[in-house]
Amino acid sequence: MTVGQACPVAIPGSTLITQIGELVTNEAERPLMTDAALVIEDGAVAWTGPAGQAPAADSVVDAEGRAVLPGFVDSHAHLVFAGERSAEFAARMAGRPYQAGGILTTVAATRAASDTALRANLRRLAAEMLRQGTTTFECKSGYGLTVADEARALALAAEVTGEVTYLGAHVVPPEFAGDVPGYVDLVCGPMLDACAPHARWVDVFCEDGAFGADEAAAVLAAGRARGLGARIHANQLGPGPGIRVAAQAGAASADHCTYLTDADLDTIVSAPLVATLLPGAEFGTRHPYPDARRLLDAGATVALATDCNPGSSFTSSMAFCIALAVRDMRMTTQEAVWAATAGGARALRRTDVGHLGVGARADLILLDAPSHAYLAYRPGVPQIAAVWQSGHLAAGTVSAGTAS
Amino acid sequence: MTVGQACPVAIPGSTLITQIGELVTNEAERPLMTDAALVIEDGAVAWTGPAGQAPAADSVVDAEGRAVLPGFVDSHAHLVFAGERSAEFAARMAGRPYQAGGILTTVAATRAASDTALRANLRRLAAEMLRQGTTTFECKSGYGLTVADEARALALAAEVTGEVTYLGAHVVPPEFAGDVPGYVDLVCGPMLDACAPHARWVDVFCEDGAFGADEAAAVLAAGRARGLGARIHANQLGPGPGIRVAAQAGAASADHCTYLTDADLDTIVSAPLVATLLPGAEFGTRHPYPDARRLLDAGATVALATDCNPGSSFTSSMAFCIALAVRDMRMTTQEAVWAATAGGARALRRTDVGHLGVGARADLILLDAPSHAYLAYRPGVPQIAAVWQSGHLAAGTVSAGTAS
Repeated sequence: MTVGQACPVAIPGSTLITQIGELVTNEAERPLMTDAALVIEDGAVAWTGPAGQAPAADSVVDAEGRAVLPGFVDSHAHLVFAGERSAEFAARMAGRPYQAGGILTTVAATRAASDTALRANLRRLAAEMLRQGTTTFECKSGYGLTVADEARALALAAEVTGEVTYLGAHVVPPEFAGDVPGYVDLVCGPMLDACAPHARWVDVFCEDGAFGADEAAAVLAAGRARGLGARIHANQLGPGPGIRVAAQAGAASADHCTYLTDADLDTIVSAPLVATLLPGAEFGTRHPYPDARRLLDAGATVALATDCNPGSSFTSSMAFCIALAVRDMRMTTQEAVWAATAGGARALRRTDVGHLGVGARADLILLDAPSHAYLAYRPGVPQIAAVWQSGHLAAGTVSAGTAS
Repeated sequence: MTVGQACPVAIPGSTLITQIGELVTNEAERPLMTDAALVIEDGAVAWTGPAGQAPAADSVVDAEGRAVLPGFVDSHAHLVFAGERSAEFAARMAGRPYQAGGILTTVAATRAASDTALRANLRRLAAEMLRQGTTTFECKSGYGLTVADEARALALAAEVTGEVTYLGAHVVPPEFAGDVPGYVDLVCGPMLDACAPHARWVDVFCEDGAFGADEAAAVLAAGRARGLGARIHANQLGPGPGIRVAAQAGAASADHCTYLTDADLDTIVSAPLVATLLPGAEFGTRHPYPDARRLLDAGATVALATDCNPGSSFTSSMAFCIALAVRDMRMTTQEAVWAATAGGARALRRTDVGHLGVGARADLILLDAPSHAYLAYRPGVPQIAAVWQSGHLAAGTVSAGTAS
């Protein structure tokens, strides 16, 4: 079936969502349709077009003028951890000193946690993300930092997502203090051996205080040699070599991008690298927001993601990130929603999600609002009425009738 | 019953909420308890104390270590309106010009709307607020601006809340353009006659472009003469006489307070006036946030409210306002939660809500988190597990057992 072409008989098992006030497809030809309908069949989008031309289907959902958009693609999240750091957060916000904060707090708690406890926390967060409209998410390791703990984190992550990222090079663990080369050897050697089978991606935190250019390049090269795709944490806290390293490694995405030189910007556009912006981290640390407008105006592909983690950004809300992107990063509502869906898909090199073209995975959100703009216009308000994942109603409730 | 004193037999119809990880009472003696329990009886808080000393009750809810806090008190909202302004919002955020925006757009839509349409929109928003933990809210008129339309708005508001505010002096309507004194005479005369029976409060928008000092004082004095309490919109867009006018009128609260001179600050503290801060409005317009820290450090009583309205701040989320207050207004998590509960109650001169002392109305929130700090620590994430209003479970679900 093609767009706009009516189908005379109902497709078995198909679902028609009709009376869609605004359908965000992210397709080049018709990125945004009004008075639209969409048919789901076999877990994929089978048809989109004007509501008046919709084909019959086995069941019908009346969107009642509300908006439908692709499920969010959250391409940057750290979800395998134990413990929490709300007291550290509250102290940071109040400008009070706080002892023993930081990633290593979470590393200690994660190492000490049982598989059962880690799995429960991970599944709780994954379910929370789905209720908020996130139908694809990436999940990193990085709080184990031993061979066994990193491999365990990735095996757990693989239970809930296909987008698993090996981040052994998150920080240098205490037992390697003063021996960064020794830790990089571990990350590129035995730890990678144990982790690569569980992962699709390799990542490194390239920043002063974490890993430098040569170390980051080594980590990404080792991962690539094992068939992993590369991604990077770069230029979050200050300028640095991360963008260049990412481009040289053929990375899919450079994440954070808060401090970019003009040369970095050129590299992002020409490599190309997706620039994945994580405004939750700036919200949670009071750092300045990345300059999305500058990236977009230069022609860069921008993604938005949550950076969900218990330290710097414990939000799992893509809607919240969209609102920040519009208010504090000068993205238009369309750009922000694109970045949170199609942008995330690009950052993960996925073509099956992040859009609602025919053949795309039927991952979609029914908003309790007439347009995508409400995600920024009504910040903080839960507006996800229903979520479909691979065509199955995964969260929320809708009244579905049977087609005549 | 008194705090900490066990009751040997179950109170008929009572509910015990136990295993509360953190109980925010806002009581002077024990504002925050851990490992606590609370008993609801006849719609009120009957007992609070250590979980280990909890009395028996007819039914028991296990909070499983999660936090319980007073229901939010949203003391500033504009909910009787028709239409929406998402396109105006998107244009403002994108820096694009937009014709025919502003309050008068909403006035025209509201005048044209049926009672049924206004009621449906109002009830939808009220239900949305309740689901988000707001158990008391104020609701203003101000989009009618004729005798009949203002009275209608207030009658509708009175269907959903006891905190009804007459805001005929929101802006000067088009039919009085160039005749502000004529409109003020209407507001203080026939419009007040029609509106006072439905309202508890009178409010005025004292700002350049709306109403000046003498006009605002006249409106508040007329309302007070009819038995209404006074409140004011002041110093939102620039310095002005609003704080002085509010103090002279014996107002309960001065709302916005974005631009305050030292003299204004002194007046707020000495009058005293509650300073009600509305960060949703600054979020939605990119104005600078009010300086909550300065107010608190001077000893002012601060409230947080949503300013929910279709133009400048279409959030209904008190949790979102708390997160902004902590991140962008330098309030501690405790100060922000107090301001969103007890502060709102002070702004409405209510002693029965905003706290969980014995005798208070049993308006409370079960958070899906172990502490109040999560409202800022996890911005944008829906965390309201359940809401009780006057002791009745009003939103969310809990597993309630029967006490042995």
